[in-house]
Amino acid sequence: MKRSLRNKVPAPELDECLRRYLKSGSKHGDTTMTLGQTRWAIAEGYIPGQSSFSDPALVSHETACILNAGETEAHIRVTVYFADRDPAGPYLVTVPPQRTLHLRFNDLERPEPIPRDTPYSTLLESDVPIVVQHTRLDSRRAEVSLLSTIAYAQAAPR
Amino acid sequence: MKRSLRNKVPAPELDECLRRYLKSGSKHGDTTMTLGQTRWAIAEGYIPGQSSFSDPALVSHETACILNAGETEAHIRVTVYFADRDPAGPYLVTVPPQRTLHLRFNDLERPEPIPRDTPYSTLLESDVPIVVQHTRLDSRRAEVSLLSTIAYAQAAPR
Amino acid sequence: MKRSLRNKVPAPELDECLRRYLKSGSKHGDTTMTLGQTRWAIAEGYIPGQSSFSDPALVSHETACILNAGETEAHIRVTVYFADRDPAGPYLVTVPPQRTLHLRFNDLERPEPIPRDTPYSTLLESDVPIVVQHTRLDSRRAEVSLLSTIAYAQAAPR
Amino acid sequence: MKRSLRNKVPAPELDECLRRYLKSGSKHGDTTMTLGQTRWAIAEGYIPGQSSFSDPALVSHETACILNAGETEAHIRVTVYFADRDPAGPYLVTVPPQRTLHLRFNDLERPEPIPRDTPYSTLLESDVPIVVQHTRLDSRRAEVSLLSTIAYAQAAPR
Repeated sequence: MKRSLRNKVPAPELDECLRRYLKSGSKHGDTTMTLGQTRWAIAEGYIPGQSSFSDPALVSHETACILNAGETEAHIRVTVYFADRDPAGPYLVTVPPQRTLHLRFNDLERPEPIPRDTPYSTLLESDVPIVVQHTRLDSRRAEVSLLSTIAYAQAAPR
Repeated sequence: MKRSLRNKVPAPELDECLRRYLKSGSKHGDTTMTLGQTRWAIAEGYIPGQSSFSDPALVSHETACILNAGETEAHIRVTVYFADRDPAGPYLVTVPPQRTLHLRFNDLERPEPIPRDTPYSTLLESDVPIVVQHTRLDSRRAEVSLLSTIAYAQAAPR
Repeated sequence: MKRSLRNKVPAPELDECLRRYLKSGSKHGDTTMTLGQTRWAIAEGYIPGQSSFSDPALVSHETACILNAGETEAHIRVTVYFADRDPAGPYLVTVPPQRTLHLRFNDLERPEPIPRDTPYSTLLESDVPIVVQHTRLDSRRAEVSLLSTIAYAQAAPR
Repeated sequence: MKRSLRNKVPAPELDECLRRYLKSGSKHGDTTMTLGQTRWAIAEGYIPGQSSFSDPALVSHETACILNAGETEAHIRVTVYFADRDPAGPYLVTVPPQRTLHLRFNDLERPEPIPRDTPYSTLLESDVPIVVQHTRLDSRRAEVSLLSTIAYAQAAPR
């Protein structure tokens, strides 16, 4: 990456870029390097309409855990697909540099809330590389049940 | 992708293509681009024969969640492998463009139902790229238990 | 794949190969093509020593679900790694062509059983491509809990 | 890999290298070859503050299962990301050759413990290839719930 920058970026931008890289590198090793992909899909989605608890940590919820380990803010467009209607979205989400966001689909309101008890799929498109993991806590019954999986990652279209 | 189109596609097709891209782009960003792979495998499969509930949402089930984020209908051939007999199938499944299908293996009937309490594996072959995630809800006991994982993706044979 | 065969394989072998391909293709589409990888790792491993049930389906168990979608038998070497002793194995496992095996680590006996209540990791090396998924059913408590994930796939060393 | 060594490595090193390969190969097949990647991310992270049990095996915990199937010790830097503060770490972890480590985030103390009931993400950077799987046991309720997924793997930056 640095090698290609040397050929294409004007000197001042390059200097600034290298300065940021060296500065951050001294704090967290290689963590400021590019990590992840810009497109992630979660084919499974379902927010149970019921919960046995009112404690927010135990309310049935569906989460996309998003890690932005990079140096620049991630602007993410979330599109939600259904079985029998047009997709909803985009929902716009921002994750600051070097931060994580555990995004609850329950909390999405604009442009419209995600319907409960309805199967859906999700696509996340970011302007910088991120890492996405999908987790659901289901507390329809008094017992809590969990599922989790890494999402499907794909490089941005060229 | 757009760059290569400029070289290879006749002008009218290109115009139409770009128009569709821009139109959809204004609604759902890059979501109409190719997303996923055409071959997916789920090595784990098991439909518990028992359930503690009659509510369809809580009956023990095994699901392949399929996202078709593309612009054309996906035609999918599902083959089911067993430990000690020849594979069953193909089961034919269709997912419309920009839709998701949460396919319950419990519901497959043709050419034959999937036997209960029997280990199996599944191969899904699609004519357009899709994303597949595997989820099971097990309610043999009164408590609901969940598992989920992204399926194994592989590019189509060349 | 067929193209390279044309250059390297003597005509009779090629004919036989194509004949098998066409024959099988008419039954299960592309399913006889190469699917999967030859090396798979499962970093998590733990067989609970306790179970609340004697029904074999509900005894706590750890499983590697293996799909061999190919046309030839898969010979698999399983090596088990521990925290503080040398690896155990190889355990030798065979999966017939177009079959699945849900291998319970509980059942491995030779060269030695897997100790209970002990963290381990597993490496599976096959002579033909396979797909591996990891699943555990934990019934230490009266409630059954499940986890599952695709294993880590890596191409064979060249 | 052996072929490239033949061209680039002086004869004595090569002999020693081949000897080690053959020696280990006779015990565990190809297991001493490079397996895994050097950078792994787990976007989901959450240590429940409560547990219904005091048995360490059943206390709520979050684990990174790490397999080092190689011949040399793995030195791993763990960085933990939060929603609203700078990352914590690096936590330094060592995994001996041909060993596994089921690292409990609950046990990390230096430079600081991981806060409970707080969403986080994790980055693991190793000097040799490893395989990482993420598992959580949640026993906030009397019932145990499990989740697990392969972590996100990425080759080291070039």
